[in-house]
Amino acid sequence: MSLTNASPIECAKAARIASRKLAILSTQERNDALTAIHNALAEAKESILMANKCDLVSPSDASEKGELSQSILKRLDLGRPGKWEDMLQGILDVRRLEDPIGKVDHRMELDDGLICQRKSCPIGVLLIIFEARPEVIANIASLAIKSGNAAILKGGSETSESFKTISTVISHALTTTVVPNDALQLVTTREAIQPLLQLDKYIDLVIPRGSNSLVSYCKKNSTIPILGHADGLCIIYLCADADKDQAVRVVIDSKTNYPAACNSVETLLVDSAALTTHLPAVAEALLEKGVRLRCDAESLTALQDTLDAHQAAFLTSATSDDYMTEFLDLTLAIKTIPASSSSEKALDAAVTHINTYSSHHTDAILTSSSVIADTFCAAVDSACVFVNTSTRMADGQRFGFGTEVGISTNKIHARGPVGLEGLTIYKYEVRGKGQVAGDYGGKEGRQWKHRMLPLEEPA
Amino acid sequence: MSLTNASPIECAKAARIASRKLAILSTQERNDALTAIHNALAEAKESILMANKCDLVSPSDASEKGELSQSILKRLDLGRPGKWEDMLQGILDVRRLEDPIGKVDHRMELDDGLICQRKSCPIGVLLIIFEARPEVIANIASLAIKSGNAAILKGGSETSESFKTISTVISHALTTTVVPNDALQLVTTREAIQPLLQLDKYIDLVIPRGSNSLVSYCKKNSTIPILGHADGLCIIYLCADADKDQAVRVVIDSKTNYPAACNSVETLLVDSAALTTHLPAVAEALLEKGVRLRCDAESLTALQDTLDAHQAAFLTSATSDDYMTEFLDLTLAIKTIPASSSSEKALDAAVTHINTYSSHHTDAILTSSSVIADTFCAAVDSACVFVNTSTRMADGQRFGFGTEVGISTNKIHARGPVGLEGLTIYKYEVRGKGQVAGDYGGKEGRQWKHRMLPLEEPA
Repeated sequence: MSLTNASPIECAKAARIASRKLAILSTQERNDALTAIHNALAEAKESILMANKCDLVSPSDASEKGELSQSILKRLDLGRPGKWEDMLQGILDVRRLEDPIGKVDHRMELDDGLICQRKSCPIGVLLIIFEARPEVIANIASLAIKSGNAAILKGGSETSESFKTISTVISHALTTTVVPNDALQLVTTREAIQPLLQLDKYIDLVIPRGSNSLVSYCKKNSTIPILGHADGLCIIYLCADADKDQAVRVVIDSKTNYPAACNSVETLLVDSAALTTHLPAVAEALLEKGVRLRCDAESLTALQDTLDAHQAAFLTSATSDDYMTEFLDLTLAIKTIPASSSSEKALDAAVTHINTYSSHHTDAILTSSSVIADTFCAAVDSACVFVNTSTRMADGQRFGFGTEVGISTNKIHARGPVGLEGLTIYKYEVRGKGQVAGDYGGKEGRQWKHRMLPLEEPA
Repeated sequence: MSLTNASPIECAKAARIASRKLAILSTQERNDALTAIHNALAEAKESILMANKCDLVSPSDASEKGELSQSILKRLDLGRPGKWEDMLQGILDVRRLEDPIGKVDHRMELDDGLICQRKSCPIGVLLIIFEARPEVIANIASLAIKSGNAAILKGGSETSESFKTISTVISHALTTTVVPNDALQLVTTREAIQPLLQLDKYIDLVIPRGSNSLVSYCKKNSTIPILGHADGLCIIYLCADADKDQAVRVVIDSKTNYPAACNSVETLLVDSAALTTHLPAVAEALLEKGVRLRCDAESLTALQDTLDAHQAAFLTSATSDDYMTEFLDLTLAIKTIPASSSSEKALDAAVTHINTYSSHHTDAILTSSSVIADTFCAAVDSACVFVNTSTRMADGQRFGFGTEVGISTNKIHARGPVGLEGLTIYKYEVRGKGQVAGDYGGKEGRQWKHRMLPLEEPA
């Protein structure tokens, strides 16, 4: 891993060349590189934690003066109990995952002795821009090497000393492996991002991890495909036929488990018929957790009628902006789905609201009807559509992917929580014995066989 | 299908709304729409061919004056024998294909009663810009409906009367079906393209079919992902150990079967040791077919030594530009791979040339060594990598996909010949019984099961 002072174009060109070498390494060779990185980091613990201490000097000052929250300070601190061990364990966890490269998912005999197969391969060169969490760089380096992709990394500047030290350690470790050093490059200046975003000849995919504004900036300023999500405006639709206890549990968890996360709920749609049966219990539980509720007229009236005056004081009237807002804190907008002649029509109104206002990340329904649930899942145009479970479940670890590259709201390539598979593409390999296109077609020509074959080649 | 005079943004908004209705139709409902389109076109044969005759008036004039080639005139003429029948048959062929929507390719029990599945779904709204071939509009309309996507279509202006008439017929046919009319919209002015390319809020994917300049224009002027390929600079590497007869057949077919196609070969790399053993026979066959050869110094000398003077007169010296040129006609650049200590080193030089100059569409090797072939396939960074077969095989029909949406040189989503699958994405559906994220993790929390399930739900 080079700590590069090269120009963005030199850096990208070098990554491109290295990516071709990385692409033909075996599973074992890539895994061995992860082992080498793990061991080198373990040995360099002291110097890395020292560098991290330097990073913490000015944030600690700021925190003491009350200018920086304790939670951000904690995020920067690699010395907190368990964090170092988790970072090292994460590398071994990625190493243990199934190799995403070289998997054949289509194999067809086009004609006698003419075999076409589709095989997964690395995408090429990734540009990954990530937040100031010192442990993340090791995770991202592992994901890139495991998936056979070269990567240009830019981490948040608040922990740049940690990143530099870790990258130097990884660089030394790679010299003992067959992974070329240019396959991982750390750029340290923010000024490098803009020119890198233009280099679509050398960089194949940009993965911005972090703030909405970072993702939006990348989307607007790059001709390279972006994998990620700018917003996380998740919506839950509470039907009148939902199990009430489940509804309370799911809404509470979706809002309060980690309010700043992209998969937290921001708007609750409530069937008119559920305003008196379900909503009071849900609202009471939310208010108890300190959630401020912004209600439309119908839900406000319903709640004012049922909650005690002390509780009702925490209710406010919603504005139309509230249904377009990702609060990212303990605030929830509530909107009533008007009574209609059938639950299908109510569903249609809820789905229309969701498809209009949701950020297409994760939306959920609470219902006991499997028919309504199925229609909801088909009709809602979002990466994740959930039935009777928390929006917070939208996560690669919870989905059992072993790791998470990020969450995508893209409509192509990878959508939803993205595992290692999202860092791969495929190529078609056709092996023949001199067959040519001119042999086929017409009245006299050969006919195609197009016979599906088992994915495994016979031994 | 509306023949729209709406503004680009109204058109895109209407398509987006229609796309959500289309997305929840059943296989049968979408197939029924294809039947209706097929039957309506069959009935309207006379008026469509009449409109096509109007389109042909001015091109026929131009052709008689020698200002337009016969082959382009033929392309515009829907009345040529077999073309009408092929167009109708194409709709039935698409109808018969397996439904690409609703396929579950991942199913996992996250915990008791908490099931996560990944299901294919339409992308949403496509913008398809295509050449002036009157029959293509029916094919594209079929592909869009079959895959559940709304589509905004813009066809080449030379056959605009044909397109308008066909689109009116399709529009009437759709009123007898449940497919919303706005799901297919024909825009008739070139000026609409630029504003449509900006509407990434409503349009999910642009598919430009046609000239390199069109594709490049779209890539440069849109924030919407583009599916396609700008160039088709394909390269064949002829190894000294190749079967000579196969080499002659494959190179001839790759160059002369359809020289204007994107999958025709443009550069031939030749092992130094094959200059005298293989190249003369290959060159002789090419010259006989009227192919002009642009040779580097070594291959020129070798051919001048072996070909007769008449043949040798058709050889010219290659410039460095020739290896960057997609000739799209009967011209081939030839370059020698210098002799080296091993075939691996020669392979490395050939692969480096290919990865530098190829358009990453289709590249082939001619060799009798399966080890060399395997290394070539892994090392060449192209959508299609072929062994001992013609580059012309890179085609959705030949690959057995039943239809071809286009050929992509993208590094994400869909690469190589793209079938219906390329018009789909997936969503994650999670169904639970009130499970929440807060239940899991920590010492006291529940553990994830993460147990893979069969893809089929139990009956």
